[in-house]
Amino acid sequence: MPLSSTQLDAALGFADAHMADSLARLRDLVAIKSISTDPAYKAECQRAADWLVADLKSEGFEASARPTPGHPVVVAHGPAVIGPRVLFYAHYDVQPVDPIELWNTDPFVLTQVTQPDGEVHLVARGTSDDKGQLLTFVEACRALRATTGTLPVNITLCLEGEEESGGKNLPPFLASARDELKADVALVCDTDLLDPLTPSITTMLRGMVAEEIEIICADKDLHSGMYGNAARNPNQVLAEIIASLRNSDGSVAVAGFYDDVREVDAATKASWQSLGFDDEAFLKDVGLSIPAGETGRSVLEQTWSRPTCEINGMIGGYTGDGFKTVIPAKASAKISFRLVADMDPDKIRAAFRAHVRARVPADCSVRFTEHGGSPAIAVPTGGVYLQQARAALADEWGRQAALRASGGSIPVAGDFKRILGLDTLLIGYALADDRIHSPNEKYNLKSFHKGIRSWIRVLAAFAA
Amino acid sequence: MPLSSTQLDAALGFADAHMADSLARLRDLVAIKSISTDPAYKAECQRAADWLVADLKSEGFEASARPTPGHPVVVAHGPAVIGPRVLFYAHYDVQPVDPIELWNTDPFVLTQVTQPDGEVHLVARGTSDDKGQLLTFVEACRALRATTGTLPVNITLCLEGEEESGGKNLPPFLASARDELKADVALVCDTDLLDPLTPSITTMLRGMVAEEIEIICADKDLHSGMYGNAARNPNQVLAEIIASLRNSDGSVAVAGFYDDVREVDAATKASWQSLGFDDEAFLKDVGLSIPAGETGRSVLEQTWSRPTCEINGMIGGYTGDGFKTVIPAKASAKISFRLVADMDPDKIRAAFRAHVRARVPADCSVRFTEHGGSPAIAVPTGGVYLQQARAALADEWGRQAALRASGGSIPVAGDFKRILGLDTLLIGYALADDRIHSPNEKYNLKSFHKGIRSWIRVLAAFAA
Repeated sequence: MPLSSTQLDAALGFADAHMADSLARLRDLVAIKSISTDPAYKAECQRAADWLVADLKSEGFEASARPTPGHPVVVAHGPAVIGPRVLFYAHYDVQPVDPIELWNTDPFVLTQVTQPDGEVHLVARGTSDDKGQLLTFVEACRALRATTGTLPVNITLCLEGEEESGGKNLPPFLASARDELKADVALVCDTDLLDPLTPSITTMLRGMVAEEIEIICADKDLHSGMYGNAARNPNQVLAEIIASLRNSDGSVAVAGFYDDVREVDAATKASWQSLGFDDEAFLKDVGLSIPAGETGRSVLEQTWSRPTCEINGMIGGYTGDGFKTVIPAKASAKISFRLVADMDPDKIRAAFRAHVRARVPADCSVRFTEHGGSPAIAVPTGGVYLQQARAALADEWGRQAALRASGGSIPVAGDFKRILGLDTLLIGYALADDRIHSPNEKYNLKSFHKGIRSWIRVLAAFAA
Repeated sequence: MPLSSTQLDAALGFADAHMADSLARLRDLVAIKSISTDPAYKAECQRAADWLVADLKSEGFEASARPTPGHPVVVAHGPAVIGPRVLFYAHYDVQPVDPIELWNTDPFVLTQVTQPDGEVHLVARGTSDDKGQLLTFVEACRALRATTGTLPVNITLCLEGEEESGGKNLPPFLASARDELKADVALVCDTDLLDPLTPSITTMLRGMVAEEIEIICADKDLHSGMYGNAARNPNQVLAEIIASLRNSDGSVAVAGFYDDVREVDAATKASWQSLGFDDEAFLKDVGLSIPAGETGRSVLEQTWSRPTCEINGMIGGYTGDGFKTVIPAKASAKISFRLVADMDPDKIRAAFRAHVRARVPADCSVRFTEHGGSPAIAVPTGGVYLQQARAALADEWGRQAALRASGGSIPVAGDFKRILGLDTLLIGYALADDRIHSPNEKYNLKSFHKGIRSWIRVLAAFAA
């Protein structure tokens, strides 16, 4: 159902005029502590799903929270219209907030903080990843419906509650709801702008393999005076295993790790170079100055097109105040690998486990826990929806939308392709300095506002 | 004031007859949660000191709790008599109780558990280390006074409250109380029997250097998707530093670490071999089978006469339930070195710090926190008090007392030598399987009972 330019302007004007209402809804949604990885917040995840269902119903969607073995998936269908079918994805769950003492404000109270340059930050857990981004689309639908009485295309929303905790229940859910989720193109709002002025469509994403390992030595904690030297120390064993994961040139030392890794083609490399990414500024923003990782590769190349291995957490022995001369019985680490195109998560997981097993001393043992995995994805850049979206973004931002890669992993894009046969357009308005997963996460008010306006234009473009 | 054999028998009989009272006092003392390393338990440490003062006063000591910048030192003087002066040391503080979920009973409730072999275990935090041992001496004094009206020798008690947390306030206190603590010999009750049937006097103890290091990389936690590879991961840096502390032959890799380490002389080695220590059984007791540490050295040799480096705790990043793809801003570890004779704690600390600093990448930083240090000690084995004590122990246990070493560190023995010019006899009744510093710590009822009787005999022997 094509929109006239008057209708488009009316929808954009509605979004502008009702920003206070949109912000109030964002405030309500971030106040719900939907930390999916921590079982203590299970009820909060359900509450976030219920809130979305109620909100979507209020604007004419047929919406419900579908149970899964984990947190629910919210599915909502807009009115049937003549035009293409769009499947929109975002997630309503958030990361834990620790270390809580580093937050300047309550992580669950949306706080507007005006910066010296006039930019307004919306500070709270999940504003950028991903509740604020999720609502840009919902608010765009609201503006379109309020001004045109319907939506320009057939829209189905699929809002996940386990993106931050492995997301293992989404693929079976997608498979079970294949008919209901049929569409012509998928949209995902969980990525960044290239910079505050440049919209972008992410066409390459790294995949991930997440593992937890526990090294078990003695069957009880030991006194380091009585046993030190003679008894194997699992902290030492674990540290040696972790140290063994990287070569001195910064490459990952797991056998076969790079077997399926291809160099990025020259054209893509050239297009990335033209983006003017500033390695130094990127690191300086977080208090660093020297790129780690593989020697001789730029920051952009490393985070967009090279796999990595990161130690996300490790713990063993006494870690409280003061000192305790203990040799602990066990030590553990959470380790993840970011993958690039053609790397097989199962193969990498197996190679990692073999690498670890080969380094566990004879009378110690290791326990592995899987925390999810997904391959990298690459979206074809020639499709019609991508061209339409790119033009719509250019209209809103006044400049060409960049086609970029991202170092993060958004498994759902791969799931949509594999299970639903859909190509995904990854369009988001977050910024690299949004501190997602960290204390004081924020989303720029401008991201939120222009994000809503961008979706209005993109949906209108699809209907044209 | 020499005791007749009738008087000695009366004192021993009194101890036997009043075991229930002695156990009730042990129950009361272990109920006080005097965890010195955790500031949350400061008042409990004071309460333990006050309890001891009241108890010692009730049996005729002039006792008081002396304030220090940390927890108080309890000092008590027995009645002046004709005879040698003895300074007795033990400590009333205990280790933390975590992991609390591994305790079978409340760590602060003295629980008597009868074993299949009829042995009775006194289970609670501190029964073995060191409240039960402390009370063996106090109860011995009580029995002697109850039956002879006085004590056979001049006794001063010095009971510390910071042995488990670095003990940095004891040396200045000893220096300030030098005149008051003057004695002919010091007794310390904080060591083990060689085995359940063999009393022993420990003549060699390892020293210790305890350090905490914190590796700081970025100025905030980062998302591993966006920064993974490009940003330095402090978990990885810390693991590499820890891994670098040991060579592949199990020796400590800090430069100069073994410079002052001498091999144990042939006579001592021979005497240790005669003790019939079973490496395999020692490790099997804790679920291990293969000695770690330096290749080609026995467990006894390694724990008694070789220095070590142990990672007592390490933590970095997300360690809760589930998974969080974070690159943390920092990671830290608690690391201790056990030292042998002639190693200088200051020199080892400096060498360790240099080793670490050389491995911190250019734009990361390291912060060191000192957690105490003390040299190893060796007690001359020819002194008259040692001979008298050895004979008294043989009378009680029916077999020769072993002269042994220990892998633990008891800094006070060095302090007594350095500050008070005193040689120390280390006599204790704990056992290697007492699970000190671990869940379900216990002290055998037999250790407690025969410990009391042993001290009665030792004090009587000093008065002869």
